[in-house]
Amino acid sequence: MKETFIRETATVDLDNPVLIEGLPGLGLVGKIAVRYLVRQLKAERFANLYSPHFPYFVLVGKKGGVRLLSGAFYYWKNKNAKSDLIFFTGDSQAQTIEGQYEISDQLLNFAEKRKVKMIITIGGYRVETKEKPKVLAAATDKTLLDRALQAGAILSPMGSPIVGTAGLVLGMARFKKVDALCLLGETRGYLPDPDAAKSVLEVLHAMFKFDVNLTGLDDEIVKAEKMVTRLQKIEEKRALQAEETRKEEDKKITYIS
Amino acid sequence: MKETFIRETATVDLDNPVLIEGLPGLGLVGKIAVRYLVRQLKAERFANLYSPHFPYFVLVGKKGGVRLLSGAFYYWKNKNAKSDLIFFTGDSQAQTIEGQYEISDQLLNFAEKRKVKMIITIGGYRVETKEKPKVLAAATDKTLLDRALQAGAILSPMGSPIVGTAGLVLGMARFKKVDALCLLGETRGYLPDPDAAKSVLEVLHAMFKFDVNLTGLDDEIVKAEKMVTRLQKIEEKRALQAEETRKEEDKKITYIS
Amino acid sequence: MKETFIRETATVDLDNPVLIEGLPGLGLVGKIAVRYLVRQLKAERFANLYSPHFPYFVLVGKKGGVRLLSGAFYYWKNKNAKSDLIFFTGDSQAQTIEGQYEISDQLLNFAEKRKVKMIITIGGYRVETKEKPKVLAAATDKTLLDRALQAGAILSPMGSPIVGTAGLVLGMARFKKVDALCLLGETRGYLPDPDAAKSVLEVLHAMFKFDVNLTGLDDEIVKAEKMVTRLQKIEEKRALQAEETRKEEDKKITYIS
Amino acid sequence: MKETFIRETATVDLDNPVLIEGLPGLGLVGKIAVRYLVRQLKAERFANLYSPHFPYFVLVGKKGGVRLLSGAFYYWKNKNAKSDLIFFTGDSQAQTIEGQYEISDQLLNFAEKRKVKMIITIGGYRVETKEKPKVLAAATDKTLLDRALQAGAILSPMGSPIVGTAGLVLGMARFKKVDALCLLGETRGYLPDPDAAKSVLEVLHAMFKFDVNLTGLDDEIVKAEKMVTRLQKIEEKRALQAEETRKEEDKKITYIS
Repeated sequence: MKETFIRETATVDLDNPVLIEGLPGLGLVGKIAVRYLVRQLKAERFANLYSPHFPYFVLVGKKGGVRLLSGAFYYWKNKNAKSDLIFFTGDSQAQTIEGQYEISDQLLNFAEKRKVKMIITIGGYRVETKEKPKVLAAATDKTLLDRALQAGAILSPMGSPIVGTAGLVLGMARFKKVDALCLLGETRGYLPDPDAAKSVLEVLHAMFKFDVNLTGLDDEIVKAEKMVTRLQKIEEKRALQAEETRKEEDKKITYIS
Repeated sequence: MKETFIRETATVDLDNPVLIEGLPGLGLVGKIAVRYLVRQLKAERFANLYSPHFPYFVLVGKKGGVRLLSGAFYYWKNKNAKSDLIFFTGDSQAQTIEGQYEISDQLLNFAEKRKVKMIITIGGYRVETKEKPKVLAAATDKTLLDRALQAGAILSPMGSPIVGTAGLVLGMARFKKVDALCLLGETRGYLPDPDAAKSVLEVLHAMFKFDVNLTGLDDEIVKAEKMVTRLQKIEEKRALQAEETRKEEDKKITYIS
Repeated sequence: MKETFIRETATVDLDNPVLIEGLPGLGLVGKIAVRYLVRQLKAERFANLYSPHFPYFVLVGKKGGVRLLSGAFYYWKNKNAKSDLIFFTGDSQAQTIEGQYEISDQLLNFAEKRKVKMIITIGGYRVETKEKPKVLAAATDKTLLDRALQAGAILSPMGSPIVGTAGLVLGMARFKKVDALCLLGETRGYLPDPDAAKSVLEVLHAMFKFDVNLTGLDDEIVKAEKMVTRLQKIEEKRALQAEETRKEEDKKITYIS
Repeated sequence: MKETFIRETATVDLDNPVLIEGLPGLGLVGKIAVRYLVRQLKAERFANLYSPHFPYFVLVGKKGGVRLLSGAFYYWKNKNAKSDLIFFTGDSQAQTIEGQYEISDQLLNFAEKRKVKMIITIGGYRVETKEKPKVLAAATDKTLLDRALQAGAILSPMGSPIVGTAGLVLGMARFKKVDALCLLGETRGYLPDPDAAKSVLEVLHAMFKFDVNLTGLDDEIVKAEKMVTRLQKIEEKRALQAEETRKEEDKKITYIS
């Protein structure tokens, strides 16, 4: 695997699709929001993104199968004749600087190939206090930005950075003649933040009128808190394991050389 | 050396070979297991893998010769007309993220070229307590997984990661239409763990009925403990040397410029 | 974006252009000096440089737009029939070793394509005490160096290093048959140093007789000190955010896997 | 500059040349030894090696000129009709893992192109105590190794590593059908060690009968100790400067954005 690539697993026809992107980041806001929509709309997976810039481990599944870290594309056909939707989420962001640019580039190539004209990226925006999370917007196009502001978002402050895929996709969108909007939910950042995801989804709902029930996210919040504890334990184990492996490597003991 | 490559040193014909991989990792479980089989079966080396992602030093041999860090392929022809075996082990895993993907990719290319249909990767699984090590299995194919479970392995827990070559080979096997099974022996991880290797070999023996005497591994365990002390001293010397060299480099003193 | 590239946004004809480069570095001396000239001469932007070796975030602008980190080229046509000027400045230096060489290489390619025969790079030179900053010069050509010395610069001490773009452009200029001069203003280095930039501009003014009023830089100094405080706060926020994101990534929690 | 390259500055014909390599490393043993031979034999420079894997700064020369970090090739024609000599030394080793392999590879390509059949690499071998430094040898060929042992070197211990160019050139020599010998002078490693270089030169002299007066190295030792102090001060300045620049970069303050 020399570089990031996207592999389609099903052939689908989409009308004027809008791409909504949410990779893991601050508060996992983007990932929670996108995954919630995927589940609610029963969107179907049709492509995967692989990269040699993702961390080099695989994850064991329920029945002993394994999978590479990856990104996944899901589609939902809109019966009301408005835009179809493509969702993109995944396990990780790139772990190298060039990988970050490469993955955002591949995402934009895929969007262009699929005749996507509008991309929405979702992430977290770090704040200290914790009231109802606001949603900050930035966009490549004034009309798109105004729609977000009318839908309840506020303007991102000048000079603030947007780190990773959520930002780079906007920065590079101009090279592909695609409009892009970034919605960042305020979050403390430490733990998965379904509240911040909910605020972003409310803005998206006001903008696009998804036929999606958001109260289900409250139930998800409870489930999430339980799952977090379980997954944190697994993660601690992985980190310890990786550290032991590095110690082993560093020792370079050649047993029975 | 621009990228990882494999160089064959002998031409061999193999029937339906099964590839068994064990690079250094947690507890050196994979390396110990594979090297033991290589010795017991008197498998012969027929190819080497070199990579610019291995650490940049060479090792001095017994008679003053040197060798690059590398991986080595050994073959064993099965007189009972079942599958022949290819073993792969080596000095190190890749030291960069892209290198990890590149080496696993080259391994799978080589397997595909050699008409390998089944790959078994071996590694360690970190646990705190130390009883008789269990063997955890994950696989790309249910039939293969069931064979492992019947042979005494238990299911890898959902959500656990498999780091490095042992995992990436399974994750990328689907791109080559090869089945793969990963066997991880429970180990504390600090030191070479021939006990964990022995547990894995017992599962392999039950699966494939190798004509291999495993009690010899007990003798190896004693020898290993002595060799560990000697090699740890050499390793400390290397690390000190590398650190001195880095200090020297950092000073960038141009003597007699 | 596989590698650094330069994109022209306007077509301009330039006579015997001289390229003046100042990327962020020690004391931001190069960037302050170049930006001051760009403003005073009302130079117009005509090209941008993008690179996958820049940090992977975008910056939000005044009206909610975003931009990639980049370098920018500005031109100024000299009505007195002497050389036209090209200015180059930007947000960041490359973050990788190969990226440093790649960006300097692309800069020199662009200069060669534009028939630039002389390049001036500007940076900071670290000193402890703080008197009126002197300007240290180094050059690929004796005549050019002498002009700088006559204009008030002093000779860079033998054996001193020039780090980053300001140095690499000089080191690689010989491959393009271009002459290059480096002017480093003495600076403590911690904060933006318009005083050091002013010293460099005085040398440039004596060399090239720009029609530029340097007293305006004093006003800029006051404004700068206020802006620094504001931007430092934004920067702290970004660094915290990036740290939170890394913690999130490190946890690798797969929510609703 | 996409990758390491070698640029010849003069055309020379050489008979059966032997290449002697000594880049900066432990105790600067290799560099001191090679530079001493270059000076004593008045060898002439005829090629340079440049790499995007060297540190990204340039060095100011005596008269305000600058140069990239590089490697340099010198030749000496042997009037006694034995082998001509090519010397290779430089400012630095590669700063990345792949760069280390790339530079050693380019060196071997150049040797092959020049019909070099034997390469000698020189480095340091870290020891704690400080008596007259011994010289440890490793080689790709038994005959060559024996010549070194007869000339006063001792065998490198099995399992010891040779880090960097001095080792990789030996490890990769087999791909080019070139024989290679590595001579490591015992050294504490902290400071330039002309004593260790002298021991290595004594072995080389016994092997090849260079017409070189080694007592001159004693004078060099005194000069070196004075120069070390001066250069260390310059180096501290560079390190501080680089650190300030990194702090500046990390702040990412966009002055007058």
